[in-house]
Amino acid sequence: MPISARNVFKGSVTAIKEGPIYAEVVVTTPGGDSIVATLTEASVMSLGLKLGSPVVAVIKAPWVSLMSGTPEYRFSARNQLTGTVSGIHAGAINSQVTLTLAGGSKLIAVVTNDAVTEMGLKPGVAAVALFKAGHVLIGVPV
Amino acid sequence: MPISARNVFKGSVTAIKEGPIYAEVVVTTPGGDSIVATLTEASVMSLGLKLGSPVVAVIKAPWVSLMSGTPEYRFSARNQLTGTVSGIHAGAINSQVTLTLAGGSKLIAVVTNDAVTEMGLKPGVAAVALFKAGHVLIGVPV
Amino acid sequence: MPISARNVFKGSVTAIKEGPIYAEVVVTTPGGDSIVATLTEASVMSLGLKLGSPVVAVIKAPWVSLMSGTPEYRFSARNQLTGTVSGIHAGAINSQVTLTLAGGSKLIAVVTNDAVTEMGLKPGVAAVALFKAGHVLIGVPV
Repeated sequence: MPISARNVFKGSVTAIKEGPIYAEVVVTTPGGDSIVATLTEASVMSLGLKLGSPVVAVIKAPWVSLMSGTPEYRFSARNQLTGTVSGIHAGAINSQVTLTLAGGSKLIAVVTNDAVTEMGLKPGVAAVALFKAGHVLIGVPV
Repeated sequence: MPISARNVFKGSVTAIKEGPIYAEVVVTTPGGDSIVATLTEASVMSLGLKLGSPVVAVIKAPWVSLMSGTPEYRFSARNQLTGTVSGIHAGAINSQVTLTLAGGSKLIAVVTNDAVTEMGLKPGVAAVALFKAGHVLIGVPV
Repeated sequence: MPISARNVFKGSVTAIKEGPIYAEVVVTTPGGDSIVATLTEASVMSLGLKLGSPVVAVIKAPWVSLMSGTPEYRFSARNQLTGTVSGIHAGAINSQVTLTLAGGSKLIAVVTNDAVTEMGLKPGVAAVALFKAGHVLIGVPV
């Protein structure tokens, strides 16, 4: 799809919880991964979202944090997807890290090189990708 | 202005919709571009925002996604600004892409080099800049 | 801690304000710095957050904007922490800028090289780190 965001997950809406300004929408992929997004109520209406709507959930790579090793904290991020590092491409400041998730899909995070070193990230290492519900874009087919 | 964010749009508040925690504020530039921001209710009060208030809407370049070509999806991002690529500066991992919007203002996005290649982004190509209302900072003159 | 985010502040919850979808949580460090986070109500419940809970507030470096010099605007970002630049590491597009805050803790921002040049950022320069409450992750000890 012609969008710059690296992470585009196809699925359908499996839950919607509405508030006065914001709504929370759950997207579940065919493989069973669930992604939670918060949208403005106005977006829910303009996209015509309802249970079962086919959608894409889009997450820019710099919005993804990675966690590895023995967890010391439980985090508030609604989205916490477990995977294995399958590739790392290092720049001067940041690295682009690819995780392969349980269901076989790929998820890309951009993190600092310092993080890659400290965390010992390399192919084969298990990691969890964290991102907030407020950082997910939802798209519906035109 | 001495702020690191690359995108600073001057305008005035043309709509405010309030909720218990979050409020949605629309900023319209003199050229007629509208930017939607969600702020905490506490920020609306501390900045004294009301209809007609002169403000700046600030968006960091890494928070902007780009879309080009024939759209396959309609997205939830409240902000979708159409423009033409007028410059690209490539690093090892990311590129800084400048769009010139219909009204003549510039908008900068930082996207991965992979996205630039896949999307065929180069000067003269039409693109849409997407960013969420929750990623916009609002400033008022001191 | 094995997380890729560069900014991890230990503290405790000193205020919680709840809404139907989102809640606002204030974390105060032992040194007295306060960080405001907005979480979904579901996260507040699943983490068991209450007044006095020991937590970490986590902010990815690309989510931090920097401001320096004489302020022309007051901003909506709930988090505005004053410090002094103590290090800069430049890449092709972005630089990683370290601020030392009043209380002695370090805060890292990733901003464009253009911003570093325009703002005259260098060790010893005073700067304010801005980030939105919606960009803070909260963690509780396992």
